[in-house]
Amino acid sequence: MTFRLAYLIDTLPAEDPRTDFAGTFAPIDPDAPALSVSDLSSNRGDGIFESIAVVDGHPQETGPHLDRLAHSARLTDLPVPNLAQLRAVVEHAAAQCPPGEYTVRLLMSRGVQHGGPGQGIHGPTAWLTAAQAPDSTAARERGIRVVTLDRGYDSGAAARAPWLLLGAKTLSYAVNMAALREAKRRGADDAVFVTSDGYVLEAPTATVIIRRGDAFLTPEPTGGILQGTTQLSAFDWLEENGHPTGYEHVPVAALHDADAAWLVSSTRLAAPITHVDGRELPVDRDLTAALNAYLLGPRD
Amino acid sequence: MTFRLAYLIDTLPAEDPRTDFAGTFAPIDPDAPALSVSDLSSNRGDGIFESIAVVDGHPQETGPHLDRLAHSARLTDLPVPNLAQLRAVVEHAAAQCPPGEYTVRLLMSRGVQHGGPGQGIHGPTAWLTAAQAPDSTAARERGIRVVTLDRGYDSGAAARAPWLLLGAKTLSYAVNMAALREAKRRGADDAVFVTSDGYVLEAPTATVIIRRGDAFLTPEPTGGILQGTTQLSAFDWLEENGHPTGYEHVPVAALHDADAAWLVSSTRLAAPITHVDGRELPVDRDLTAALNAYLLGPRD
Repeated sequence: MTFRLAYLIDTLPAEDPRTDFAGTFAPIDPDAPALSVSDLSSNRGDGIFESIAVVDGHPQETGPHLDRLAHSARLTDLPVPNLAQLRAVVEHAAAQCPPGEYTVRLLMSRGVQHGGPGQGIHGPTAWLTAAQAPDSTAARERGIRVVTLDRGYDSGAAARAPWLLLGAKTLSYAVNMAALREAKRRGADDAVFVTSDGYVLEAPTATVIIRRGDAFLTPEPTGGILQGTTQLSAFDWLEENGHPTGYEHVPVAALHDADAAWLVSSTRLAAPITHVDGRELPVDRDLTAALNAYLLGPRD
Repeated sequence: MTFRLAYLIDTLPAEDPRTDFAGTFAPIDPDAPALSVSDLSSNRGDGIFESIAVVDGHPQETGPHLDRLAHSARLTDLPVPNLAQLRAVVEHAAAQCPPGEYTVRLLMSRGVQHGGPGQGIHGPTAWLTAAQAPDSTAARERGIRVVTLDRGYDSGAAARAPWLLLGAKTLSYAVNMAALREAKRRGADDAVFVTSDGYVLEAPTATVIIRRGDAFLTPEPTGGILQGTTQLSAFDWLEENGHPTGYEHVPVAALHDADAAWLVSSTRLAAPITHVDGRELPVDRDLTAALNAYLLGPRD
């Protein structure tokens, strides 16, 4: 049996002044019953989450992940979490992880609706899980095939309709999971969402980076997509190594014609794209290996 | 304390021949821990559901609800449920409900992913809750104000991109809940989703019916919206009472200019719309009262 753990978290208000958070979270059996059937996570996908990589006991980019969680909370009208508390819980969990790669997931739902729809909500509910990460060696070294899938929204939808929650990382991921199944049905490993008017968005659980000449570009996180925490780290490393980076509206044709492209995410890190919609892309194995070596180092 | 109950259901394959389902479901405390923190309902909104009204112990339109659940299962690549079993479970729960109006919710998630993303799934997980329905008298008699909200999708999205799961009733309802909050922020009681190219879809948890002269129309359930079970019953009653009914592409202007309009759903039944985007609509109180009296009668 591989290592796993779970904590239930008694969330504190953002303004709570305490600095010792022992006693505000408690380990539970990850397989045992823990959530009520009236929790809005399991009934409505009504909550938010972050997945944080842990490498050799160090949680990666905890600050950017917690900042994004707070951003998701604001977009979904959830109470803004106490980030000092959540940082302490994440660090506690990471310290329990054996050497190697693990994934900590931090989740917060709106709470429990005891009387059913229309009744009062007691919440939020928050919990954390940690588990050994799946082996990503093949994806990092040999790369992945992707297909582009229409996300149904045009480029203006996020700005026009904030209730679509396009910049929030919510628990309502049924479409993301369906897109991954569709990609596999088409013989690919992953999907890249594109707008109905032909611009690259993001993958269901990753950020897209493309290379054009010496420059590295990612679609602008203007509300329609999540700001990628691993993408931010990758851009830091690329800049340090003399490569210009930038944010752009990226037409689908620019992905098809890229000089290289990657999906980057917390757990799998940088996976070079070998094929987009069946069309081969160049893969820079040395640069990818150097980038992944950097991403496996401790980062805050 | 109002009446509530919950069952965990050990789902049978669709082809299981048994006819006695005792022992395949068990009552649990609706407030007690029941679901693992690794269940894909609470992690990914990855599952499907139905809300079934119970009136004086009779579950309403169980057949159409179970048919729609099976449709949702097919669209989301979930195992098609054993409908005879689920009918028995729903009828058992309904028989426990005291006189009056209750809501039974039947939910099925993809299951539990013990090792986290990328690992095997043990599932599905299924459960049922029953609770007293909120009092809908005011909505049924005095009506509701609605605002139209852009769903971000154009009319062709559902047919073009089935991975958007637009015709499935999934547990990923964060956007539906956000739209209801936005409607309340705008001083309305409910929202009506419209396409980005200006056609009426559905409400976050209800179907739209409009009246034009003597005819009653609802947006065509061509994949972009759910087929409403209560709307089907309402159309039966309208036809019996000499009113033609039909399915059409309904432009937003046709809702603004309707001779009357309703949101219909399992629990609230027919709520006449008094205002759309601040513009007053005529309300036919007698017809609405007669329709609701019909909808409160036992229907299968």
